[in-house]
Amino acid sequence: MVQLGGNRYGKAEVRLVHVARGAGASGADLIRDWNVGTSLSGDLADSHLTGSNAKVLPTDSQKNKVYALARELGGDVAPEVFGVELGSFFVSSQEPITRARVSVDEYGWTPVGAAGYSFARAGDLVRTTVVHVDAAAGTTVVSGLKDLVVMNTTASEFWGYPKDRYTTLAETRDRILATSVTAAWRFRPEAVAAGVDWDAAFRAGKSAVLETFAATYTYSLQQMLYAIGSALLDALPAVCEVRLSLPNKHHYLVDLAPFGLANDREVYLAGDRPYGLIEGAVLADDAPEPGIAWD
Amino acid sequence: MVQLGGNRYGKAEVRLVHVARGAGASGADLIRDWNVGTSLSGDLADSHLTGSNAKVLPTDSQKNKVYALARELGGDVAPEVFGVELGSFFVSSQEPITRARVSVDEYGWTPVGAAGYSFARAGDLVRTTVVHVDAAAGTTVVSGLKDLVVMNTTASEFWGYPKDRYTTLAETRDRILATSVTAAWRFRPEAVAAGVDWDAAFRAGKSAVLETFAATYTYSLQQMLYAIGSALLDALPAVCEVRLSLPNKHHYLVDLAPFGLANDREVYLAGDRPYGLIEGAVLADDAPEPGIAWD
Amino acid sequence: MVQLGGNRYGKAEVRLVHVARGAGASGADLIRDWNVGTSLSGDLADSHLTGSNAKVLPTDSQKNKVYALARELGGDVAPEVFGVELGSFFVSSQEPITRARVSVDEYGWTPVGAAGYSFARAGDLVRTTVVHVDAAAGTTVVSGLKDLVVMNTTASEFWGYPKDRYTTLAETRDRILATSVTAAWRFRPEAVAAGVDWDAAFRAGKSAVLETFAATYTYSLQQMLYAIGSALLDALPAVCEVRLSLPNKHHYLVDLAPFGLANDREVYLAGDRPYGLIEGAVLADDAPEPGIAWD
Amino acid sequence: MVQLGGNRYGKAEVRLVHVARGAGASGADLIRDWNVGTSLSGDLADSHLTGSNAKVLPTDSQKNKVYALARELGGDVAPEVFGVELGSFFVSSQEPITRARVSVDEYGWTPVGAAGYSFARAGDLVRTTVVHVDAAAGTTVVSGLKDLVVMNTTASEFWGYPKDRYTTLAETRDRILATSVTAAWRFRPEAVAAGVDWDAAFRAGKSAVLETFAATYTYSLQQMLYAIGSALLDALPAVCEVRLSLPNKHHYLVDLAPFGLANDREVYLAGDRPYGLIEGAVLADDAPEPGIAWD
Repeated sequence: MVQLGGNRYGKAEVRLVHVARGAGASGADLIRDWNVGTSLSGDLADSHLTGSNAKVLPTDSQKNKVYALARELGGDVAPEVFGVELGSFFVSSQEPITRARVSVDEYGWTPVGAAGYSFARAGDLVRTTVVHVDAAAGTTVVSGLKDLVVMNTTASEFWGYPKDRYTTLAETRDRILATSVTAAWRFRPEAVAAGVDWDAAFRAGKSAVLETFAATYTYSLQQMLYAIGSALLDALPAVCEVRLSLPNKHHYLVDLAPFGLANDREVYLAGDRPYGLIEGAVLADDAPEPGIAWD
Repeated sequence: MVQLGGNRYGKAEVRLVHVARGAGASGADLIRDWNVGTSLSGDLADSHLTGSNAKVLPTDSQKNKVYALARELGGDVAPEVFGVELGSFFVSSQEPITRARVSVDEYGWTPVGAAGYSFARAGDLVRTTVVHVDAAAGTTVVSGLKDLVVMNTTASEFWGYPKDRYTTLAETRDRILATSVTAAWRFRPEAVAAGVDWDAAFRAGKSAVLETFAATYTYSLQQMLYAIGSALLDALPAVCEVRLSLPNKHHYLVDLAPFGLANDREVYLAGDRPYGLIEGAVLADDAPEPGIAWD
Repeated sequence: MVQLGGNRYGKAEVRLVHVARGAGASGADLIRDWNVGTSLSGDLADSHLTGSNAKVLPTDSQKNKVYALARELGGDVAPEVFGVELGSFFVSSQEPITRARVSVDEYGWTPVGAAGYSFARAGDLVRTTVVHVDAAAGTTVVSGLKDLVVMNTTASEFWGYPKDRYTTLAETRDRILATSVTAAWRFRPEAVAAGVDWDAAFRAGKSAVLETFAATYTYSLQQMLYAIGSALLDALPAVCEVRLSLPNKHHYLVDLAPFGLANDREVYLAGDRPYGLIEGAVLADDAPEPGIAWD
Repeated sequence: MVQLGGNRYGKAEVRLVHVARGAGASGADLIRDWNVGTSLSGDLADSHLTGSNAKVLPTDSQKNKVYALARELGGDVAPEVFGVELGSFFVSSQEPITRARVSVDEYGWTPVGAAGYSFARAGDLVRTTVVHVDAAAGTTVVSGLKDLVVMNTTASEFWGYPKDRYTTLAETRDRILATSVTAAWRFRPEAVAAGVDWDAAFRAGKSAVLETFAATYTYSLQQMLYAIGSALLDALPAVCEVRLSLPNKHHYLVDLAPFGLANDREVYLAGDRPYGLIEGAVLADDAPEPGIAWD
């Protein structure tokens, strides 16, 4: 009376650092520092039901292919290219596997000094990509960033909201607005097929997020979400949909009146929990259905 | 050319400890230690597009209601009951809000001594629940557990898998199988409507996971996933679907031969990353469509 | 004009799981799940000043010895025994090394079912030990526990404190007292020399902490610290000093009056940061000087 | 038969964001984003032994003073100045308190755009300071940084080490050297008394670490430690001692030979655990005794 539903398996958190020796400006090294995940699905019921592994390419082999593919592709390769190649490899080489999901988180490094081989971790954000390769549905690419923490010390208000029996929050015409941006943008199928300058797209996306955050006067974080989403669609013509998750990193103005002190937007308590959380999507009017892109 | 897509907002990680004084055996206190999240959706485009907050009940008010509702419901209340009540409150009291999602993580405490007011954190798992209340689609309840770390020191094999060019893994007829179980079970709509003994269901679910893990000889973690899912469906007649995520917490037998030592299944290295990750669903044959339950 | 000061080096976080097959009751397996660190010091100036590694036993070799020693000692060995053996090995076999520090964190596992090979992570605390072996100063052993989270839902007051210009805290005759106990107990040199039943000592120490926490009515967390320290000295005659670190895990009674609700010690907010932090030592009157024991 | 030993208490992790409005270049805001800890000691035996709180200034009052002092000092204040003022306040205003320890972690923010009020978290390191104010021993200041992750993709060798029975590591003439720098520098008492340009000192210290890391060809991480320590003493004449903790973030060259691929210093696995850990101090020849500075 019981059936197997959707399922997939793979290797998570394969840590790969690829040094492209001398590939940078003036012969400097370039670093690709990645955390790669693979996840395969297809005709895999046997392994669940009978214990037969005849169709289960080991996750260890998947990990080995991650390292080998980095070498095979060589040099300074965008994570999106890597994801498409890796996913295609699994789907094309393993008969039972009809779909592969590849995720790559990329950590940034900043050159230090002139030696060309010294770097410091940037630490300001993580670049992300998730690629699906499906034997029938084709290839999807969703890229983006996470852990980009930004703050406006002013230019934000919050008022005019409904007050129910449980509302005690005071309206404000000036507050700190801070968040940790998680943004993911889905590329149009025709752009994926034609090829994209993925690194340039990432730089443009990151700039759009930062510039929009700085330039937008807000009455809510929802407004910021929509502004960033729209800006990303504007900056990235190859993109048809953006999804954003914006925690409201509350900064509470500390009441110093008990100590005889004014506090005119100066001293804040940075709260941990709870926090507001705003999630939403912004799409081009002609965005095609996402299909498996966000799985 | 741009449109707003799906969106929701709310308060995350509201930390609530409810002491039910004297409500336990022999007049002991009972503790409900929760991490609550709320997420509302509905007619909220204005806040994104115009900055009007006229329909945006503050997340601070949502947080206040969490604490107030705990007091209003009183005593020793299951997280599922709390979630249904809280979600219904938002949907019924805020006209623009047509759907609420409430999540509750519950941390366990073990009584210490006979005083009735001393406890130690159990630390062995987190009980979870996610409730959706939708004005049109009704109410869904998905409960479960996470962070339940288990190990079989034997009774697991892994062999007979395909070997491709990148396969170096040796087959084994005996290995440690360890995982951190994340399991979520969806209750049937009619059971949600009729009411469930949620605490008893959780205890039965936890027991089913533990007993099945101990009793199942495996040739793959996929097999364990299916066994646990089936056992949960068997133990919980009110449940129609189970979703599981099982990381393979690899334990590598250390090669001590270079030191002139045998190592007959004795000394292992517990690896961090990478790890295998097996995800899947097991459903009753007559499981209705999930609709919004897993959103 | 510059000199090298104190220094040491070693391998941190060597993850070792030792399965003692059939060594438990009724032939069940026993698990020792450890996180081991080594740190060596001695005549090591050359490596800092000249780059010569002639006296630097690789940290990789140290790691290898951790795994090999587990096999050499066999079976179900206490972490203190392991630490003494490992430290002595380095000091006796590497001429430039005059001191070794070995730390072992032990994670607990609870048997599941009757199979004898199934376990669940206990998760309630971590057992700790730090051993120093010094060619001149001898051997010291400090053991203890950390991450033991406990709560009294009542039997705690806080009042009668000085009020300065910055004091706004209200006195209370009833509060929740919760903390995460870190306790470390130093064994007397003669006990270390004579040998100790380390596992029994740990069990007695853990019990003393839990029982004292439950049995002590407090006016401050300092009082609890002293009570636990004294109880540990009482329970463990082989111990001469206890050091404790007790964060005050604040639980704030939520003000529900704005919502027309009383809140008689029922609904609390569990705070994250900031937290009080109480640190202190309790010693036997005849405790010898600690020397290097706490380094 | 039992006595109270050393003890202290205070408030940990007070999160303070101070916005100095218009205090920066071109009228931009400046941000000081801090995590502050206080710890007081003195005549506090009563609270441990009798439960009397007559000498225990609440940790809540300490927290309040943190926020109030930020306002009282105003503007763009270095964490060292803040620490000295805060410590002095407690010692001078609370008769039983004879020593205060104040720690400040500072998180960096980078201006975004030209608005003057938008910032992004730098994320590349944390600036640290620990101040002790003691009624008898005076004031000490130790500053530094942590979480500065750096990598040399070459210019590092490791060979010539002793080989014992447990040594399997191959010598290498070229490896990646990566670490996460924790450095703390102790200021000379006379410099503390005379005053220091603390922000300039931090910038100089950070530069010294980065430049030395990039410029130093190493045969061991110990050598790097000494080079960085020496460079810091050279760059900071007001400093008499540096303490460093350098985890060896191992990058293992992946063996691709089984797949018919060469791997000439190109594809690496970034390991998590275990890791080497090198700790050491470098002192000026005339460094005075540290006293309480490192407590």
